[in-house]
Amino acid sequence: MITLTVELGVRSYPIVIGSDLLGSSGLFDPYLAGRDVLIVTNEIVAPLYLAPLQKLLPDCQVNTIALPDGELTKTLETVNKVFDALVAHGYGRDCVLLTLGGGVVGDIGGFAAASYQRGVDYLQVPTTLLAQVDSSVGGKTGVNHPGGKNLIGAFHQPCCIVSDTSTLKTLADRELSAGLAEVVKYGLIADAELLTWLESEADALLQRDPDHLNHIVRRCCEIKAAIVAADEREHGQRALLNLGHTFGHAIERCAGYGEWLHGEAVAAGIMMAAAFSERLGRIEALDTERVRNLLSKLRLPVHPPKVDPYEFLAVMGLDKKVSDHTIHLVLLDALGVASVTADYPSHELVDFLSAQLIR
Amino acid sequence: MITLTVELGVRSYPIVIGSDLLGSSGLFDPYLAGRDVLIVTNEIVAPLYLAPLQKLLPDCQVNTIALPDGELTKTLETVNKVFDALVAHGYGRDCVLLTLGGGVVGDIGGFAAASYQRGVDYLQVPTTLLAQVDSSVGGKTGVNHPGGKNLIGAFHQPCCIVSDTSTLKTLADRELSAGLAEVVKYGLIADAELLTWLESEADALLQRDPDHLNHIVRRCCEIKAAIVAADEREHGQRALLNLGHTFGHAIERCAGYGEWLHGEAVAAGIMMAAAFSERLGRIEALDTERVRNLLSKLRLPVHPPKVDPYEFLAVMGLDKKVSDHTIHLVLLDALGVASVTADYPSHELVDFLSAQLIR
Repeated sequence: MITLTVELGVRSYPIVIGSDLLGSSGLFDPYLAGRDVLIVTNEIVAPLYLAPLQKLLPDCQVNTIALPDGELTKTLETVNKVFDALVAHGYGRDCVLLTLGGGVVGDIGGFAAASYQRGVDYLQVPTTLLAQVDSSVGGKTGVNHPGGKNLIGAFHQPCCIVSDTSTLKTLADRELSAGLAEVVKYGLIADAELLTWLESEADALLQRDPDHLNHIVRRCCEIKAAIVAADEREHGQRALLNLGHTFGHAIERCAGYGEWLHGEAVAAGIMMAAAFSERLGRIEALDTERVRNLLSKLRLPVHPPKVDPYEFLAVMGLDKKVSDHTIHLVLLDALGVASVTADYPSHELVDFLSAQLIR
Repeated sequence: MITLTVELGVRSYPIVIGSDLLGSSGLFDPYLAGRDVLIVTNEIVAPLYLAPLQKLLPDCQVNTIALPDGELTKTLETVNKVFDALVAHGYGRDCVLLTLGGGVVGDIGGFAAASYQRGVDYLQVPTTLLAQVDSSVGGKTGVNHPGGKNLIGAFHQPCCIVSDTSTLKTLADRELSAGLAEVVKYGLIADAELLTWLESEADALLQRDPDHLNHIVRRCCEIKAAIVAADEREHGQRALLNLGHTFGHAIERCAGYGEWLHGEAVAAGIMMAAAFSERLGRIEALDTERVRNLLSKLRLPVHPPKVDPYEFLAVMGLDKKVSDHTIHLVLLDALGVASVTADYPSHELVDFLSAQLIR
């Protein structure tokens, strides 16, 4: 078990990472003892981990809401159901929400915590690789709007994250790979060594070797914690974490939410970002090839779906990385180095999308 | 025209108060020039002040959403309509919302700004006395839940408040009085001199003398700005601003949202807080009498509706001023001095409610 810290002054909080943490009594006591707790989880995760989690909360008033699984659940309507549960149990400002599940559950529960009574505490217990390496850290919460992904939400930091990597044993293969897409992202924006390691250790990772899983969760959280500490509200470098996401969000939206897993769309989005970077002469064809091979090895899609390029562009224009009607993209300068830029000819993007999306 | 400042470090912002400000060209330029603006207003206010406001925004892309008037509009569903408008117009992170109207419009527009794309700018142009003296200042935004008032929301500070007191000319008498309830509140918690002034100047106020209106808007904003600067998130003294509000919110909820104006419920709530303070021996019967006379003079209700006391108590228990299942109340120690306390025998509250609510 290791503990990292997201350094945000008085709002700093720990990320606890390790195996079998849900068997570790007393783990939540500093945060939850004696409090009103609402566990926000989903129908897949609840039968697996709700009972062991509840055992760790002997002194709490615990209630649970289990949401349907999947991205289609990530709506304002679902958040309202969480509010209904909080009100029905008479929970006050001093209650705490505990999210048990993947990124969808964390985003919904976190936004409900941000908005109930203008902000109550919450604690993340991510049970998917994607949530453990990425979405549980950093306080981005929110839901989708029919017009775009994550368009409604809040920055609201949790008071603790507990990442029990043993929960990854029960994860579907497709979900495991989806999480690895975000791991590749961390390598591409900040850590060339991690990329090399992923290339050589892909098999052990896909076989869920515990040490390998602990290693990547730790390394990604280290990178993300440093970025969030430096730029909590995404005025600068935090935007690098969106590599592949502007393209990826458009893929999710155009394919219909829930068709592609978020991580799958991010993988194809990373591939598009790499190919567009190459087209602009920022990286070599060999670099793009390396990214494609690694993603394929991790059983991730490397092609976007067939979509009308102009529809795709319009959806990209609604993504949050748009400022003053210019689409800011995260592009690669090398493998391990990225930057946010709107400094490209817009016709290049149109031509690129036409080539990529119609095929 | 005078300008106060709400001192919150890098998030400090001005409150501009005066007559005929909506005829003052260039007033909004520092905040809005060249930007995408969504005006959030209502169907009563739009025909009166939308045209002059739009004239002040010559360089902006302006769109408008006009909501139905009244407290019943203050729901998550309405906020979602504001999101729909923002998405339909393709507005990005750099857009700004401008709320034109009373407290309901400000609370909805402010919460939409807090949550759209995880937070965009907004600017308040309050057109009711209640919004000018109280609700537009301090960043409390939110909507009602069927279970209780303002249960869903965010702290999100505006980037500027423009209070044109000339807009109060068109305010309904009932709305004017409702605003005066909050003015009485400021006197009771912080400024005995203001109370005396209100007692002598009530007639001129009700006749809407411009100097009198400018005076009370300025004085209330001075008091509120100081309290918010000292305690933005209501961990301490900001709770004093809730005098009459725990009782008042229960009145609004039990009578059905929209039956009582917020300010009317606050007036009856202030009266209950004074009477309960007297019952506990904190103030004299003469003090209570003075409060009753002043509220009556300002054409405000001084009795709660007939409600089942136990239902009323249950609703009070859901109010946000509840911590650890104890109902914290703002009670008077003298006229001009108040404190937040849960230090009273709970049977006293039950007996008091029975006496007040059944009659």
